[in-house]
Amino acid sequence: MDQRLERTVQALREVGADWAVLASVDGVAYATGHFAPVEAGPSPFAGGPTIALIDRNGTAGIACANVEAAAAGASRVTEVELYEGYAFDHGVDYIDSYRTAVGSLARRLGVGGRLAGERGHVPQILGDVLPVDTALDLTPPLRRLRATKTAEELAALRRSAEAVAIGQRRFLEALRPGRSELAVFAEIRCAIEEFAGCRVPITGDFISGAARSSAFTGWPIHRVIEPGDPVMADLAPRIDGYWGDSCATTSAGPASKGFMKLFEASKGALTHALEIIRPGMTAQELDAQLRAYVGRHGFTYPHHSGHSIGTAVHEFPRLVPYETAVLEPDMVLLVEPGCYDPEIGGVRSEYMIRVTDSGCEILHPFDHVPSA
Amino acid sequence: MDQRLERTVQALREVGADWAVLASVDGVAYATGHFAPVEAGPSPFAGGPTIALIDRNGTAGIACANVEAAAAGASRVTEVELYEGYAFDHGVDYIDSYRTAVGSLARRLGVGGRLAGERGHVPQILGDVLPVDTALDLTPPLRRLRATKTAEELAALRRSAEAVAIGQRRFLEALRPGRSELAVFAEIRCAIEEFAGCRVPITGDFISGAARSSAFTGWPIHRVIEPGDPVMADLAPRIDGYWGDSCATTSAGPASKGFMKLFEASKGALTHALEIIRPGMTAQELDAQLRAYVGRHGFTYPHHSGHSIGTAVHEFPRLVPYETAVLEPDMVLLVEPGCYDPEIGGVRSEYMIRVTDSGCEILHPFDHVPSA
Repeated sequence: MDQRLERTVQALREVGADWAVLASVDGVAYATGHFAPVEAGPSPFAGGPTIALIDRNGTAGIACANVEAAAAGASRVTEVELYEGYAFDHGVDYIDSYRTAVGSLARRLGVGGRLAGERGHVPQILGDVLPVDTALDLTPPLRRLRATKTAEELAALRRSAEAVAIGQRRFLEALRPGRSELAVFAEIRCAIEEFAGCRVPITGDFISGAARSSAFTGWPIHRVIEPGDPVMADLAPRIDGYWGDSCATTSAGPASKGFMKLFEASKGALTHALEIIRPGMTAQELDAQLRAYVGRHGFTYPHHSGHSIGTAVHEFPRLVPYETAVLEPDMVLLVEPGCYDPEIGGVRSEYMIRVTDSGCEILHPFDHVPSA
Repeated sequence: MDQRLERTVQALREVGADWAVLASVDGVAYATGHFAPVEAGPSPFAGGPTIALIDRNGTAGIACANVEAAAAGASRVTEVELYEGYAFDHGVDYIDSYRTAVGSLARRLGVGGRLAGERGHVPQILGDVLPVDTALDLTPPLRRLRATKTAEELAALRRSAEAVAIGQRRFLEALRPGRSELAVFAEIRCAIEEFAGCRVPITGDFISGAARSSAFTGWPIHRVIEPGDPVMADLAPRIDGYWGDSCATTSAGPASKGFMKLFEASKGALTHALEIIRPGMTAQELDAQLRAYVGRHGFTYPHHSGHSIGTAVHEFPRLVPYETAVLEPDMVLLVEPGCYDPEIGGVRSEYMIRVTDSGCEILHPFDHVPSA
C-alpha cells in the first residue's frame, strides 16, 4: 500500500473513525494520487468536488465527473465511480448525478460506521449521502502526518524543485528592460510547462519596480520593466500534483547600492538558514533567527519565513513566530527571508530544502544573482 | 442599481425568499462584480468560498478572505467583511474566521426570514450561520435571467471576444512545424494576457495531429507539431470576470485534401449558422440544422453545437438536441460545429455571436484559414 494511503488510514484510526471522506483537492491528491485540474477554476461539468472514500484497511475509491476521468485513471484507488458531468445528447442534472455517484460508490465499498471528514470540505449536498460525524476531523492528524514526506513524495518534490530551478534560470535569461512583466513571466511559465510536458498551475509572485516589489506580493501585470528595476520571481508550479516553490530577485541591469544592501541581507539570511537548519530545531526558532539576521541589516519582512509543501502549496509546519513544531528529517520546507524598502524595492530569496538527519539539503539549487 | 443585481433580486422574489446566499464563483461574480482569482486552485488562505448576501431591495454584501481584498474592493457591493486568511504573526483558524465573518456580515445586513441558495454551493460549514432553505433554489431562475445579457455584460463580452480574436491571430502567427503545442499555446496566452494587462485563466483545447485533434478535446502537451498536422485552438479566457470562447483549426503548412473536406464542412456549418440564427428559433432547432449540415458532408460531431457564456464559461442555453429554449436578442452564444475523422484529424470552427433583433452579429471576427 502506498505510504500516503497508509498515513491517511493512520489519521482515520487516530480520530476513531471507520471511513475517511476526503473532498479537498490536496487531501484527495495526497491519499489517492488523483490530481484534479485546477487552473481553469471550478468545472461547469461537475456537481461537486471529487470525493475519496477510504477505510481502515486502505480500501479506497473515488467518485468524480467524467471530465476528470484521466486523473481518476492515474490514481491509486481500486474503485472509481464516474458520473456524467459533460453530456450533449441528453440532459444531466450534475448535482443529482454527483449525489448518485457518491452514494453508489459508498454502497460498492460498504461504507458504514463512523465517518470522518476534513472540516469545512464535505459538501452540504452530500449531507444525507455521507453522514459525516462533524466531531471527527481528519485535518489535525493529517496535517501532522503529511509534514514528513515519503520516498515517493520526495521524488515528486525533487521534480517540482527541478521545475522551479528551470523557471528561475529562464527568468535570468528572459529578463531585460523594455519587456513587460507578463512577457517575461510567459517565457518562464513556458519553460516550466515544456519541462512538465503539459499545462501547469502556477502561483507565487512576479513583481517589478520599487513600489510593486516592496509590496512583496502580486501576479504579473502589463508593467514594462525599466533599467535598474528590482524584479522578483516567486515561482510556485504544481507538477504531477506536487507543488514546487522558489524565489529569486534580481536587478534589471546594474544594481544600485541600495538594491545591493537589500540583496545581500536577504540572500545572506537564506545562506544563514542553510547553515543552521537541523532536526530538533523548532519552526519558531528558525523564524526568529532569520528575522534577527535581516534585523541586524536594518530590515524586516511582513510575511512568514517559510512553509512546508506537498499536494498543497502551503502545508504544516509554517515558519512563523507562533509555530512550536519541531523540524524533522524528510520535511520539505521553503525558506524565504526578504528585505523591503519602499524607496528601493523588495528582495526575497527562497530555496526548497529537505531537512536531513544532520542539517538540510537544497532541492535543485539555482543562482541568486544581484543583476541580470 | 446594476441590472445584474436587479436580476438576482428578481430571482430571489421568484423563489419567494428574503435573502440570496450566493457561493458559486460565477454567481457571486454575476451579482456583485467580485471576480475571485481561480487559476491557482483553491486558496490555502481561505476558509471557504466567498459569500455574497443580497436582499429584496438589492442591499448586498460580501464576506471573503483578506487575500481576495482586491476583488472585493472592485465589486459593486456596499458591505465587505474581510477575514484573516493570510496572517504570519499569529495563528488563524481559517474556517472559524470564515464562519465568524459570514455571521458578522449577516448581522450587519440584518439577514433574516427565508434564505435561498444555489443548490450544491452553500458550504456545510455555514449550515448554522446561514440556515438556507434547501427547498428554495435560486439556480433555475438565475440561469434563465442570466441568459440575455445586460449592456454592461455585452461590453464585457465584447472585450473577451476581442481577447480571443487577438489570441486566434497570434495562433496563426505562432504556428509552425517543429514547435511544440505548449510553445505555441504560451505565445497565444501571452498575447491574451498582454491585452488584459494581467494573468488570465484560460480553458478550451489545444490539440495537434490526427489522433489528438480527432479526439476533439485536450490541453496542450509537449507534442511537436509536424508538417501537415491539423492544429485546433479552442481558446476560452476569462477577462475581468467574463469568459470568451472561440475555436479555429488550421493545417500546419499545406493542407491535405482530406483536411480540406473537414475544414470546408466545419467552416461551412459555422457560416450556415450565421445565416440562420434569429430570435424565436429554438436551441434544438439550431443544433439540428448544424448537425444536418455536417451530416450532408458525411460527418458528425460528438459534442454540443454551442452554449451561452458569461461569468461562467458555459451557461444556459446550450445548443444541444434536447434544449427547447428559444433564442432571444442579447443572448451571447458560442456556435461550434466540428468534423472529425480519426485518420485525418478534427476541425472545429467557432465564433462568439450576439443574437440581434433579426439575426446575429459576430463579436470580433477572426480568420478561419485552412493552412498557416
